[in-house]
Amino acid sequence: MKHPVFLGIDIGGTNIKLGIVSSSGRVLARGLIPTLPGNTPWEEFSRIRQMLPFLSSAGGRIAGVGIGCAGLVDASRGILISSPNLPKWRNVPLRTIARRTFGVPAVVDNDASAAAYGEFIVGAGKGYSHFICITLGTGVGGGIIVDGAPVRGIKNFAGELGHMTIDREGPRCSCGNRGCLEAFIGTRGLLRSAREKLKKRNGRILGSKIPARSRKLTPRAITNAALSGDRVAAAVLEEAAAALGCGIASLVNIFNPEVVAIGGGVSGAFDFMKKRVEREVYERSYVAPSSRIVLTRAHLGNDASTVGAAMQASQASRE
Amino acid sequence: MKHPVFLGIDIGGTNIKLGIVSSSGRVLARGLIPTLPGNTPWEEFSRIRQMLPFLSSAGGRIAGVGIGCAGLVDASRGILISSPNLPKWRNVPLRTIARRTFGVPAVVDNDASAAAYGEFIVGAGKGYSHFICITLGTGVGGGIIVDGAPVRGIKNFAGELGHMTIDREGPRCSCGNRGCLEAFIGTRGLLRSAREKLKKRNGRILGSKIPARSRKLTPRAITNAALSGDRVAAAVLEEAAAALGCGIASLVNIFNPEVVAIGGGVSGAFDFMKKRVEREVYERSYVAPSSRIVLTRAHLGNDASTVGAAMQASQASRE
Repeated sequence: MKHPVFLGIDIGGTNIKLGIVSSSGRVLARGLIPTLPGNTPWEEFSRIRQMLPFLSSAGGRIAGVGIGCAGLVDASRGILISSPNLPKWRNVPLRTIARRTFGVPAVVDNDASAAAYGEFIVGAGKGYSHFICITLGTGVGGGIIVDGAPVRGIKNFAGELGHMTIDREGPRCSCGNRGCLEAFIGTRGLLRSAREKLKKRNGRILGSKIPARSRKLTPRAITNAALSGDRVAAAVLEEAAAALGCGIASLVNIFNPEVVAIGGGVSGAFDFMKKRVEREVYERSYVAPSSRIVLTRAHLGNDASTVGAAMQASQASRE
Repeated sequence: MKHPVFLGIDIGGTNIKLGIVSSSGRVLARGLIPTLPGNTPWEEFSRIRQMLPFLSSAGGRIAGVGIGCAGLVDASRGILISSPNLPKWRNVPLRTIARRTFGVPAVVDNDASAAAYGEFIVGAGKGYSHFICITLGTGVGGGIIVDGAPVRGIKNFAGELGHMTIDREGPRCSCGNRGCLEAFIGTRGLLRSAREKLKKRNGRILGSKIPARSRKLTPRAITNAALSGDRVAAAVLEEAAAALGCGIASLVNIFNPEVVAIGGGVSGAFDFMKKRVEREVYERSYVAPSSRIVLTRAHLGNDASTVGAAMQASQASRE
């Protein structure tokens, strides 16, 4: 009999990532397909199943499926309630669809919660028991480990760290609120900040020569420009770092964690932002000066969510 | 042999409250002495011991002592690290002092964490497993229950809910940060708001006839004035309610709790503020509309912290 492996699926608004993951959390094979948000969930899972032969060279028998999906996910019932990036998917029974599609048990979680779990088991939070992971991307999500267990809340909606208010009169967030952390450090927030600064200077991001209105103005372009010395881009990331540090300071006061890790698409900027984030956390947090906090970049990169979802499936298979 | 009871001690900057509490959480006797912050902790505990004969009419044998103390408390070592309201008490081994003073086992916690635990066991959080209690007073503290267990953090400093930043350019807080929840709804914040409004109108709080500079300008006076129709006082509480609702919205996004309870000295204002708090929570929180949240006044009033501390002692005696 083949050894058991687990399929991790990370469903985002842009891409669906797949990972075949060993029971110890090692990624044996990866896949990526663009999300077709107009498709039904059944159609999307059928597309995912068609990818499996390409991933099976890794060997092993898929013993379970773990799904991380952007949005509000009711994990106990295995249902995606709603997702800002998949507006047509409402009250989708993802667990049932996955179980029927793959013929094995399935578990479902929010993508950022799954990523945090992955980092906790085999990444930046390994060996700690009080851990917070913030995932930066189009949206800003997160997951929290307290005393070695994930904080889920009564309906599994906990961990929406991007929607902490840090400036209650601040810019409008995609969630409808004002001044959420995401409104400053999510993709939209970063681009708004860059456009404002470029407009004032009537200029371009140096080096990359990207004008304010260009579709090439992306978080990655801003990060690259900042790393190659562009002042406007550096100022954008400085401001983002200050906002991130402010949010982390609140989380430190609320949770008194050992480690806070930053992951996700634009986390490449974290090395650039780290000092400013740290300064802000220690200046603002009541708790931090009395309790050393490790601030670090997450370890698993783009694998975090698939690994975490697969590890949840592995965990469920042992229960 | 007499039945076991537990002594709960709530050490604040102004008063020390005492409670003899049954193992089921019923308060059998109460005591109150003013804190003498110039005294050493040993001297204060000696004063507390002198109160015991007055409390012993309740019967029972004190089987353990629980202490809730304002400030950063390292519960695992039983040490008060520091307290804004007791500036001379630094690194005080409260557990050892209590054990030697009373000759029974002792446990130590932050006062607001103890209050939240009390509300969880026998008050507003009874029967729930995801519960948050915010304590309003000179300072603003709190305690969090996740899956039936208190969130403590690596050094027990978790739950500093008053020091979440809700407005990062906002007024200075006693902790050194700007725009903390406490800077808006703690005593200082409420009085600042009242003074600003009174100065603009060059007036007094109606009904109570309290001028802006009066020492009689207290949170209670503001609440009473608001309840008897004073517009300035009402505006002060409206603003406080908006700030409190903003903070609760963040906590709902982070924890997805079932119940959020508001306790502490100025919680009498909560009935006045409740509607506005609720509106703010539902407008701002991403999670709230999908997951019913009960917002309520705490049940135990001034007993919360002594009952909670005593219940922690009771819990420890069974372990």
